[in-house]
Amino acid sequence: MINLPPLQQAPNQTDLLVTHEAIHPFVHRTPVLTNRSLNEMTGARLHFKCENFQRIGAFKMRGAASAALRLPTEVRARGLATHSSGNHAQAVACMAQQLEVPAFIVMPHDAPKVKVAAVLDYGAEITYCNNTPEERQAALEEVVKETGAAFIHPFNDYGVVAGQATAAMELLEDTEPVLDILLAPVGGGGLMSGTALAARYFSVGATAWGTEPRNVDDAARSLVSGKIEHNVDNRTVADGLRTNLGECTFSIIHEHVPKIFTVTEEQIVTAMRHTWERMKIIIEPSCAVPLAAIFAYPEAFARKEVGIILTGGNVDVDKLPF
Amino acid sequence: MINLPPLQQAPNQTDLLVTHEAIHPFVHRTPVLTNRSLNEMTGARLHFKCENFQRIGAFKMRGAASAALRLPTEVRARGLATHSSGNHAQAVACMAQQLEVPAFIVMPHDAPKVKVAAVLDYGAEITYCNNTPEERQAALEEVVKETGAAFIHPFNDYGVVAGQATAAMELLEDTEPVLDILLAPVGGGGLMSGTALAARYFSVGATAWGTEPRNVDDAARSLVSGKIEHNVDNRTVADGLRTNLGECTFSIIHEHVPKIFTVTEEQIVTAMRHTWERMKIIIEPSCAVPLAAIFAYPEAFARKEVGIILTGGNVDVDKLPF
Repeated sequence: MINLPPLQQAPNQTDLLVTHEAIHPFVHRTPVLTNRSLNEMTGARLHFKCENFQRIGAFKMRGAASAALRLPTEVRARGLATHSSGNHAQAVACMAQQLEVPAFIVMPHDAPKVKVAAVLDYGAEITYCNNTPEERQAALEEVVKETGAAFIHPFNDYGVVAGQATAAMELLEDTEPVLDILLAPVGGGGLMSGTALAARYFSVGATAWGTEPRNVDDAARSLVSGKIEHNVDNRTVADGLRTNLGECTFSIIHEHVPKIFTVTEEQIVTAMRHTWERMKIIIEPSCAVPLAAIFAYPEAFARKEVGIILTGGNVDVDKLPF
Repeated sequence: MINLPPLQQAPNQTDLLVTHEAIHPFVHRTPVLTNRSLNEMTGARLHFKCENFQRIGAFKMRGAASAALRLPTEVRARGLATHSSGNHAQAVACMAQQLEVPAFIVMPHDAPKVKVAAVLDYGAEITYCNNTPEERQAALEEVVKETGAAFIHPFNDYGVVAGQATAAMELLEDTEPVLDILLAPVGGGGLMSGTALAARYFSVGATAWGTEPRNVDDAARSLVSGKIEHNVDNRTVADGLRTNLGECTFSIIHEHVPKIFTVTEEQIVTAMRHTWERMKIIIEPSCAVPLAAIFAYPEAFARKEVGIILTGGNVDVDKLPF
């Protein structure tokens, strides 16, 4: 079994190459799609890295794989733990199943049934708690104490960041024209950090820009103020992007991401619908934020070769926002 | 400009190769996707040729291109005509736009607005008529008489069949394991005929099987009776498959397709939903019929390498059947 060295600081070029090689058996190499209609509508040339086709339906698989492979063998054997009601929970559960170790997931009582079922399908054990940050944290600490399992943070972990970077690495490798811009949405910042590092180490001068719902624009404000800002109200259709940055991800984003575009709820839903109708692929609302930014700020993208990480496609088709 | 020779009989191997080469500038080479979940659920190994990603969102683009390129230059210059309220209308309109010739489309008054808008977007001229076969035919004849445009039949045309065959040719070329079975849905039989000929000429012994909604099982009954059967009632969620076979397509299917599986409405909707949820791609109900057959007759597909033509993704996301 592979053991990657733990990362005490932002991954460098070699760390990313080694990570990409190591996680390869546990993740899919997803395709890059283009679309004539969306190119015509935006005036840019768009290259979509389809992480909605990734295992568990989202890029989170990459970070979970990278972090789990960095645990010493004897620690890993006790199992993987996390708290999440979203894609990260499925990613940790799926990775544990692949490694044949236990998974312990803390989820709120009111988590969507479909998410609960998916996590159970991977053989994970669920601990339910009330849906407040304090109770989730307390429940997780209790689980870790009881089981000895290793906590895998959803984003504030350099190992997770190294895993998320591999999506942009593959996008750069699989795109024929030289990309001018890489776009990703920003939630906790794991994907954004990884994407920025991939641009830094593996592109010929591509800029990594962030995109964020205006309703939860903590990262955009953090870039301006130079410290981690928080959201007072976190209502947005892009439910994967409600989180604030962590210390690890903020430090990388602050250094490597020059700009974060923000978009309205309506722009997000419209971009999601355009993607469904023109590309015939299913993406979740959070995933539509980069395309929404291209429509909202066309002058920034006109005639540019733009790489977009499509983050995930886990949406309840009975509860669409349009 | 390319001119292909007209086809007076079923296309042979050379005809298909020449057609594939000729239509290449007018159509996309669509990807072949696989899906671990659906493989596990069915016990087969499935290879999906994603014609839902084709130009105009459906395989019909291929047949329209092939037929149009077979028209003598002076005929083609007068324009392309057809009657259709579905994907074939968009395909003819899109091909005419690419050839820079006029398109004349006869559509019923009550055609979905989204289909009308798509045809108009390609610069076609629409003639509206009442929604009966007789009035559509009369309106078409009037248009052809007035404009001198060439009628492109949606399926009963060896040129159209040759175009539709190219989807399966690419699927066979782009799939690493040797395919045992090719599956397509049967409406008018253009795609099914082409798929069967591709299997005959370009595979190492793959069998082409048809799949059809039980509610409109005219093709399955035609195979049994040895003559073209008709549907009395054509109510099905798979609205692209209501048509009966034509002489050209029946003769090819009768010779080259040993079996047509039929499936219920519920099986179609379930397979459509599985495809959306597991593959994260949008397919229309007609497109789900082959996968529905695999779920319905698992013993016929167990452990087989199965190629499936995903025919199209043009669905109104405001009116889903689930």
